[in-house]
Amino acid sequence: MSEIGIVGLGLIGGSLALDLKALGYHVTGVSRKPRTCEIALEKGMVDRSGVSLDLLSGAEIIFICTPMSLILPTIGDLIPHIEPGTIITDVGSVKGAIVSQATELWPHFVGGHPMAGTSEQGINAAQRDLFKNAPYVITPLPHTSMTGVEKLSKIVEQLGCRLYQCSPEAHDRAVALISHLPVVLGANLIDVCMAAQESELAQNLASSGFRDTSRVGGGNPELGTMMARYNRSALLQSLRDYQDNLTRLMGYIESENWEGLEAILQYTQKSRALFIKP
Amino acid sequence: MSEIGIVGLGLIGGSLALDLKALGYHVTGVSRKPRTCEIALEKGMVDRSGVSLDLLSGAEIIFICTPMSLILPTIGDLIPHIEPGTIITDVGSVKGAIVSQATELWPHFVGGHPMAGTSEQGINAAQRDLFKNAPYVITPLPHTSMTGVEKLSKIVEQLGCRLYQCSPEAHDRAVALISHLPVVLGANLIDVCMAAQESELAQNLASSGFRDTSRVGGGNPELGTMMARYNRSALLQSLRDYQDNLTRLMGYIESENWEGLEAILQYTQKSRALFIKP
Repeated sequence: MSEIGIVGLGLIGGSLALDLKALGYHVTGVSRKPRTCEIALEKGMVDRSGVSLDLLSGAEIIFICTPMSLILPTIGDLIPHIEPGTIITDVGSVKGAIVSQATELWPHFVGGHPMAGTSEQGINAAQRDLFKNAPYVITPLPHTSMTGVEKLSKIVEQLGCRLYQCSPEAHDRAVALISHLPVVLGANLIDVCMAAQESELAQNLASSGFRDTSRVGGGNPELGTMMARYNRSALLQSLRDYQDNLTRLMGYIESENWEGLEAILQYTQKSRALFIKP
Repeated sequence: MSEIGIVGLGLIGGSLALDLKALGYHVTGVSRKPRTCEIALEKGMVDRSGVSLDLLSGAEIIFICTPMSLILPTIGDLIPHIEPGTIITDVGSVKGAIVSQATELWPHFVGGHPMAGTSEQGINAAQRDLFKNAPYVITPLPHTSMTGVEKLSKIVEQLGCRLYQCSPEAHDRAVALISHLPVVLGANLIDVCMAAQESELAQNLASSGFRDTSRVGGGNPELGTMMARYNRSALLQSLRDYQDNLTRLMGYIESENWEGLEAILQYTQKSRALFIKP
């Protein structure tokens, strides 16, 4: 069976390794931290592990599962060690900022984004079937090689993911809406409630509605900043659209157009089901 | 033990009846629907039940648990039937629009708001201990009688609630922030995602972040409209504050002030814990 390389053995890289090994692939995992490599071997997540990218010279496809800022540098570091036909893919949560530059560095690059996670990070949070039924978006450019897209698609389907294919820009606009925008909205809700005259009472009275609406807004600050940084332009556009639409909605309340407001709330109630997987 | 009257035997009225009867009070329940009265008796929720307000002539305290629009009319209808010292309270989720007018109608009125619920409505959703550990806000006016406040407070504490006392206006500002604002924000998020160019992809990629942030925005349209209607001015103020603060937050992203953004996300992460009960 083919050789798969994974660079970065955190939650995503580690979980990928577990599933791919179970599927029968020969998996080599590379981490900067020797201790992480030891854990990966001890837990049987990988067949081989070490800190040197040299270990990946025979890999047919390499998944880069590092933090976003290290994806492009890692590709640069990999180039001296790998065969010209090797496919490189990544798992970064923003694609526009990665895919075209990565493709310039390495023509057999295919951008990808498995949309799964847990609140835990690191190799010890890695688990089997993390990606089962999760969306996995592949974002080829018009000149991306079909071989790479096909090989990656086959693996994604073996993982049990729902496979989608679109441009890096369409991906970034979609995740800005459903993933990055909610972070800013939730954070802003908390910020406003903290600054309010009745903040202390509001803290005492808050219940499940506030808890759920603010959940991702109270999430990992580094991750939130990173998303805004890499997806700045799509996030700003979705924030502007959000503000414009909110002004329109406020108009219904200001003008006491209660029938109009109720019609919108009926529409949003019905529409929400389209976004929620059973 | 004293006689307690309940008008309106839905989720809140029915659940109150169950707990008060278990506490040893003699409970009389009045509903407009004969079938609801039968169910209340069959389930042993009340000691007496019927459609006539006349049944409440001996009650020491009466809880009005009707929809918001019927609270004031119900007080008017009660007056011919009750003793001058009877205490009337309500469970409406907005207080400014109710308390002063209700107090003009009946000097022994004390506004209240038990902050508990389920997604189900009606007498069949009523349950024991619905209010246990939930906030229960009492909103006296400066001239509200201490006797009424003390009697209601005692019952609220027997129900196992966390008791808070504040002005109707402070209550309305606080619930606008933590309860009504999240409804509008969530509805607006759904509305924007439906109108977006990438709506279909966004629907496919949405996961728990979108699900939680939009949950109350996809809730009961009638209830959402009613809240906006009765708490219009406080809700509009919180929406304006929300927009101003969002503009400020967007400024950090526009100017690429990532340190500033991360500091805010650290603050909101830490602050959220103040609103979340363990």
